[in-house]
Amino acid sequence: MEQEQINVGILGYGIVGSGTYRILCGNAESIAQRAGGPVTVTRVADIDWEREREVMPPQALRSTEATDVINDPNVHIVVETIGGVAPAREYVLEAIRSGKGVVTSNKELMAKHGSEILDAAEEVPVDVEFEGSAGGGIPIIRSLKEGLEGNTIHEVVGILNGTTNYILTRMTEGSESFDDALSEAQKLGYAEADPWADVEGDDAAYKIAILAAIAFGKRINIADVPREGISKISPADIRHASEMGYVIKLLAIAKNAGGQIEVRVHPALVPKSHPLAAVSDVFNAVLVRGDAVGDVMLYGRGAGSLPTGSAVVGDIISIARNIRNGAMGRVVCTCQGHATMKPMGDVETRKYVRMAVRDQPGVMGKIATIFGEEKVSINSVIQKRSEGTVAEIVWETHLVAESAFQAALRRISDLDVVVATSSVIRVQE
Amino acid sequence: MEQEQINVGILGYGIVGSGTYRILCGNAESIAQRAGGPVTVTRVADIDWEREREVMPPQALRSTEATDVINDPNVHIVVETIGGVAPAREYVLEAIRSGKGVVTSNKELMAKHGSEILDAAEEVPVDVEFEGSAGGGIPIIRSLKEGLEGNTIHEVVGILNGTTNYILTRMTEGSESFDDALSEAQKLGYAEADPWADVEGDDAAYKIAILAAIAFGKRINIADVPREGISKISPADIRHASEMGYVIKLLAIAKNAGGQIEVRVHPALVPKSHPLAAVSDVFNAVLVRGDAVGDVMLYGRGAGSLPTGSAVVGDIISIARNIRNGAMGRVVCTCQGHATMKPMGDVETRKYVRMAVRDQPGVMGKIATIFGEEKVSINSVIQKRSEGTVAEIVWETHLVAESAFQAALRRISDLDVVVATSSVIRVQE
Repeated sequence: MEQEQINVGILGYGIVGSGTYRILCGNAESIAQRAGGPVTVTRVADIDWEREREVMPPQALRSTEATDVINDPNVHIVVETIGGVAPAREYVLEAIRSGKGVVTSNKELMAKHGSEILDAAEEVPVDVEFEGSAGGGIPIIRSLKEGLEGNTIHEVVGILNGTTNYILTRMTEGSESFDDALSEAQKLGYAEADPWADVEGDDAAYKIAILAAIAFGKRINIADVPREGISKISPADIRHASEMGYVIKLLAIAKNAGGQIEVRVHPALVPKSHPLAAVSDVFNAVLVRGDAVGDVMLYGRGAGSLPTGSAVVGDIISIARNIRNGAMGRVVCTCQGHATMKPMGDVETRKYVRMAVRDQPGVMGKIATIFGEEKVSINSVIQKRSEGTVAEIVWETHLVAESAFQAALRRISDLDVVVATSSVIRVQE
Repeated sequence: MEQEQINVGILGYGIVGSGTYRILCGNAESIAQRAGGPVTVTRVADIDWEREREVMPPQALRSTEATDVINDPNVHIVVETIGGVAPAREYVLEAIRSGKGVVTSNKELMAKHGSEILDAAEEVPVDVEFEGSAGGGIPIIRSLKEGLEGNTIHEVVGILNGTTNYILTRMTEGSESFDDALSEAQKLGYAEADPWADVEGDDAAYKIAILAAIAFGKRINIADVPREGISKISPADIRHASEMGYVIKLLAIAKNAGGQIEVRVHPALVPKSHPLAAVSDVFNAVLVRGDAVGDVMLYGRGAGSLPTGSAVVGDIISIARNIRNGAMGRVVCTCQGHATMKPMGDVETRKYVRMAVRDQPGVMGKIATIFGEEKVSINSVIQKRSEGTVAEIVWETHLVAESAFQAALRRISDLDVVVATSSVIRVQE
């Protein structure tokens, strides 16, 4: 099945689709060398050709019908950069069934329907690649599947959402409030008009579910991934964390411990000496902990037209190499069934707790007694200068299971000397 | 050419060879899943089986003759972890000629004879993989060849030698002298008894030459790579650098600018905000700058039995997948001829210069005048408190070509008011 030229059809000419097109055109010569022959975009479908884009494909390539791309017998690889589940899912499945290689950068699609799509691909068999769906331009999926695959992976921890990382960086470096930092991110195009999928952790949850499935070889049900966003993080928490030697980051965490798998997204206090602590602005990073390799971290731009386009083009070249060598299906999904998820109540982390209490004798003792009775061991405690009749206490616990901690916190909140438990944030080792 | 089982033979059962063996045995089940079938070590050759190792292969697998591995018709993949050029080069070429896939972690061999080896492999064709030869467990070669290959790569900058990074970290954090830090590194097994290939930059030069060839698609003559080690770095330089906002690192730099390629290894002042500045102890990291992806950094353990073994096993699985799919030679060397190297005299960097001068009026003026006459523009200058009759001046220049700078420095050194130009260190952007 040697082919003179590999033809690519693109579905969705938005941010990622146009970036992919620009790279394939701009670096055509070196890409042809590396892929073993020319890789050419011959079809591009989008429902709206009126929108402004920096680079437009020639009129002859354009179509408004996805089926023009999927049903074109001369197209070898279909690139899906539409986003969302419908109609992307149906298009991808149709392309697979018609024997084409597929590249998608669609994290929601792969997180929700990855199993169905990869099963369909294996049946034909064709390649489905999705590097752009997690970590943008960072070659993390390829590294997990082809590079680190000799390891048993214990943990994958990432900063996988650029919007929230930008907001937290502004709140840390500029002492801004969440609302101000969000407005600034929107002004700069780093946050969408409707920013909540980013801010509340859905975007990061899709990505870590994809990475966890590859790292641990178990399928993850995205509904089982608890997520907590950053909208409740206050400048006060960031300041206290800094004094204690931490920065606050939105972490996406996947752990494989004794057969049970944890996958979760939430803000965390990260020690300043941790490699993820220095990842600022819109940058993403993923730390992988393997039994042989130890700690490996990959860092780069997690979004954007050309960075994500870079990942898509890498996938296209990989499939082109397989088509030329008659080796589609060379690297298949090796997931063995569904993950057994650890219930969130059993998940153990250290906790940072900030609470407002009445500034009167015996308060600290009452709270500490409840922590003790509920077997929550305290690592450090700082009582801050009180303002009027209310004092602020910041606790850091040792490792404690979520359920035990919540039981203690409910009893503490019920104390009449406790005005409010303002913040509870997990602490990353 | 489907194969039930892929058989691996290992040449050299030292640090990397034994790590490779341990991973292939310990993770046999998951590796079999990922490779599409079992990958089994069936032969191990070493000239000395008396040495102590943590894990020994069964007697039946052992041999003292490399030819027992290379000529075994049941061995599909030969792993070369002997190191050095002879006899590794001949063994690798023989294995290639007999149609076996080859994995090597041998940086000296690939830097000096990579062209010959990859040409031989392409002729058969068989796969030759060498991820372990640069950056240890970090999947940097795979990322450049399969992941970032849609990019035009402008620059690769790395901390590629763990020994020197450990020494510089100790000198920075513990204010130790070079000699003390080296002794400590030797005691911990981070530096060899004969440490000079690491300390003087040869090891890093091999690695950056390998990465530059892949990144730029041009063959690099290792003799054309200027290198300068860290033995002359003093605690005073580290202290001054820190006050100026820098840390000192041994950098391996490869740039592709306008057809001319720069490849060099030398100590450099790295801004504390630079992603490479936080890479401490024995860790390695590589920053890649591509036209589409922007900056990507990979970080991890650059040496050691299991980390480098992880890279070797990744290569073995890659070749196993190709053998099963009849796709050996799927990713070939795409170097187009030899690089045109930029002469070192034309290389432009900023410079840090520390000099001891007589503490008398007019000295600063005399030196500044010469810098001006030679068109060396000054970014900052600090005169330090003098001790007795000698004062210390620390200059930082703007970008200047090496030859122009050296001309100025010669004239300045000849001034009778200049006692010594103690240090000249390049500054990384």
